Amino acid sequence: MTEKKPVAENVVLVGKKPAMSYVLACVTQFNDGKKEVVLRARGRAISHAVDVAEIVRNKFLSDVKVKDIKISTEEIEGENGEKVNVSAIEIVLAK
Amino acid sequence: MTEKKPVAENVVLVGKKPAMSYVLACVTQFNDGKKEVVLRARGRAISHAVDVAEIVRNKFLSDVKVKDIKISTEEIEGENGEKVNVSAIEIVLAK
Repeated sequence: MTEKKPVAENVVLVGKKPAMSYVLACVTQFNDGKKEVVLRARGRAISHAVDVAEIVRNKFLSDVKVKDIKISTEEIEGENGEKVNVSAIEIVLAK
Repeated sequence: MTEKKPVAENVVLVGKKPAMSYVLACVTQFNDGKKEVVLRARGRAISHAVDVAEIVRNKFLSDVKVKDIKISTEEIEGENGEKVNVSAIEIVLAK
């Protein structure tokens, strides 16, 4: 997996860590004054990103709403250099 | 897992089967004249539902768009009768 896109400050990339680490990252961003935080995930981490969004707004910051959700397909390079399609999600949380 | 909600005709519940079975279910609905098909999934099947939506619109029906995506939390009954929160997604595909 090679992705070298620059990541904006208010973007949280959701991967394999426990959900709480990403929840904490989101809550920290909002407490730092950000009005929007974007959760991004690919493949099996998509379910995880939805969990994170739900935990943030249900258990931590009830004034945060889901502003937008986009799904897409990204082409990534597999282990042997072949191209593999993988689904991706972007969840925009906003105060 | 106990869910006894009546399921509307144009709803495809995404679970553990191969993505293609759900893709086929969606394509069949659209070919039957439906203008909208709703994909629903919970927990780890959420990533799977996103895959299904992406395959339908990228490989089968290019006139189908993602009209709306909603995420939510559902309370389901675990194996021992205890309540467990699980994230859910609803993806509305429309022609």
